[in-house]
Amino acid sequence: MPYVNIKITRDGATAEQKAQLIKGVTELLVNVLGKNPASLVVVIDEVDTDNWGIAGETVTARRQVEK
Amino acid sequence: MPYVNIKITRDGATAEQKAQLIKGVTELLVNVLGKNPASLVVVIDEVDTDNWGIAGETVTARRQVEK
Amino acid sequence: MPYVNIKITRDGATAEQKAQLIKGVTELLVNVLGKNPASLVVVIDEVDTDNWGIAGETVTARRQVEK
Amino acid sequence: MPYVNIKITRDGATAEQKAQLIKGVTELLVNVLGKNPASLVVVIDEVDTDNWGIAGETVTARRQVEK
Amino acid sequence: MPYVNIKITRDGATAEQKAQLIKGVTELLVNVLGKNPASLVVVIDEVDTDNWGIAGETVTARRQVEK
Amino acid sequence: MPYVNIKITRDGATAEQKAQLIKGVTELLVNVLGKNPASLVVVIDEVDTDNWGIAGETVTARRQVEK
Repeated sequence: MPYVNIKITRDGATAEQKAQLIKGVTELLVNVLGKNPASLVVVIDEVDTDNWGIAGETVTARRQVEK
Repeated sequence: MPYVNIKITRDGATAEQKAQLIKGVTELLVNVLGKNPASLVVVIDEVDTDNWGIAGETVTARRQVEK
Repeated sequence: MPYVNIKITRDGATAEQKAQLIKGVTELLVNVLGKNPASLVVVIDEVDTDNWGIAGETVTARRQVEK
Repeated sequence: MPYVNIKITRDGATAEQKAQLIKGVTELLVNVLGKNPASLVVVIDEVDTDNWGIAGETVTARRQVEK
Repeated sequence: MPYVNIKITRDGATAEQKAQLIKGVTELLVNVLGKNPASLVVVIDEVDTDNWGIAGETVTARRQVEK
Repeated sequence: MPYVNIKITRDGATAEQKAQLIKGVTELLVNVLGKNPASLVVVIDEVDTDNWGIAGETVTARRQVEK
């Protein structure tokens, strides 16, 4: 029954990796809380690095500094 | 005053259908709770089937099995 | 399959009214988009009026002005 | 950097179980996507069964039927 | 530590404007609540005007009326 | 028209501080993007420290270590 929303930056996660996230988080909730997986919903949002901020800066800007 | 977020898979919902969802959910909240519709906000997110999981599998994978 | 989140102020909505919202929004998505209701999830959040702002003011403050 | 929101019904999940969810989902994102855990945020919302609907009914109502 | 999600209509906000929002909301939380900015995350979602409703109508429809 | 959701840990933020956050974020969106404040909605969620994780640990656990 749980609902999980995972937000990551849009960095080329593959369909296979996203399937692994969905499988993994579903198993985690089944194992830890004994939830029924049948209606367990996971939604992954991929967000542009211009639209994601940490510590007051966009991820785009942080990566330019790191280079 | 309420805020409603509707997440659906990206499956070709038309602008007309999305307008019907917005109208319908607004009327529902006005009818059931007597809310003022003036600042009632509805946001629809359309999510790729690779990014939506049910029961530990992506919707993409589930549809391939169903074929 | 859709997921719907409804946020309302905490104003004494009854269990019956919340059940009507859940039933109504589910029927709306089935009727407009032909969605399967089996894994259609609705979550209602009730938010204190101190924690809800419109036009730069809390709902608490707006209601005091309206009195 | 990711942000994860887990919504579950309020059913007595212990602090220990919630810590396991947070640890598990963080490890999953590190393992699958190679994300840096330092700013990886997880928020768990516990929702009353009157406020959670599946297939058009509240979880409260579904559990009464199941008894 | 806070997490902020800003949803706006997709109307050509520039990278510079989005960086200003991220900087501004981070400073606000530091100033008002004394939060540590290091793990303060801001995510901006840009939503099509067909997918955003106010008062029961899409923003697309409201703008056509206003013309 | 924007919608803003601010999630903070439940740490005794006062009604006055929450009103300042609502006012400040509304002004920010008006100043940076020229948005009309009339239907600009802000919702603040206060989350228990057991339910908030950073870097794989709950905030409750991190604070015990810091003591």
